[in-house]
Amino acid sequence: MAVVIEPIARLVNSLSKLPGVGGKTAQRLAYFIINMPASDVREMSEALIEAKEKVHYCSVCGNFTDRERCSVCVDARRDPSVICVVKDPRDVNAMERTGEYRGLYHVLHGTLSPMDGVGPDDIRIRELMTRLTAEVKEVILATNPDVEGEATAMYIARLIKPMGIRVTRIAHGIPVGGDLEYTDEVTLLKALEGRCEL
Amino acid sequence: MAVVIEPIARLVNSLSKLPGVGGKTAQRLAYFIINMPASDVREMSEALIEAKEKVHYCSVCGNFTDRERCSVCVDARRDPSVICVVKDPRDVNAMERTGEYRGLYHVLHGTLSPMDGVGPDDIRIRELMTRLTAEVKEVILATNPDVEGEATAMYIARLIKPMGIRVTRIAHGIPVGGDLEYTDEVTLLKALEGRCEL
Repeated sequence: MAVVIEPIARLVNSLSKLPGVGGKTAQRLAYFIINMPASDVREMSEALIEAKEKVHYCSVCGNFTDRERCSVCVDARRDPSVICVVKDPRDVNAMERTGEYRGLYHVLHGTLSPMDGVGPDDIRIRELMTRLTAEVKEVILATNPDVEGEATAMYIARLIKPMGIRVTRIAHGIPVGGDLEYTDEVTLLKALEGRCEL
Repeated sequence: MAVVIEPIARLVNSLSKLPGVGGKTAQRLAYFIINMPASDVREMSEALIEAKEKVHYCSVCGNFTDRERCSVCVDARRDPSVICVVKDPRDVNAMERTGEYRGLYHVLHGTLSPMDGVGPDDIRIRELMTRLTAEVKEVILATNPDVEGEATAMYIARLIKPMGIRVTRIAHGIPVGGDLEYTDEVTLLKALEGRCEL
């Protein structure tokens, strides 16, 4: 029975695709957007396109970047002998916020999940293996401490250990069932310090 | 210390302007958007611009519309002798969802709030007065039951009553499905005052 205004309906429909945004929130956002300054709306519209077009995976570590290689991979001050394996680009940000980790990263873009049909070839494990030159002394497995994260860490550890490279797992300082992204810096730092041999 | 990727930072910054979206949510949304199909992102980008450009106030009632007059105002089946005054376009939708109201609307786009410097000339009260032709028999004041909403209703009632037009206020009371025990005193008092014969 609600009055349908086509451009608003389209915007509401589009915003509803965002995670955590239901119909009511989308409508609230749409009305807010219509009352926003036109320059802000144009900016948001352009930022969407720009982020989608310019941001892609770093050719080395798989993190998001707008260059060919990301800022961590090109940074000569980073220690290339340590690679920290994470699930998501968000996890790289979480790790960087500790301000302590000086090695490189490898972003898997997922974790093994046979139930969802995600196997070793569906995440960036092969790309990780090609990076394990003689230079690499340690691989830190920093996937989330949940079932998929643990399974992925175990799987990768079993692949790498025979190569004589040290494989470590971040400590369970992170609450089990928690999410790396939402972990505070101190806890994450403790988890990093308490990493143990696998 | 987080890795800054310019296009993502711009998108996060832009999304943070939305109500209820803080830094962390904006980042989560931005990463989600980057992983969305390009067509969906383009659609969202265009929907933003389209909604902002095409949607404006109905020349009669002030509700949002992409035409000159909104679908309620042009609907010959609506009763032009009753005008329901609301604060927001969202309130029009709420009223329409009842499926019962057949009159017209008038959207004030705000309520009187001297503390915030919002006076009678800042909301669409003058536009309401020009609509009060001989045809109009009743004005329903459906502003929110808060301080500003009540003050606005009182102000408009005092302007219109001398014109001999019936002025009504939507009833205050306990919401259907609500619990007497958890209803605040003011609402309960209003419910008591507004009691009607059975």
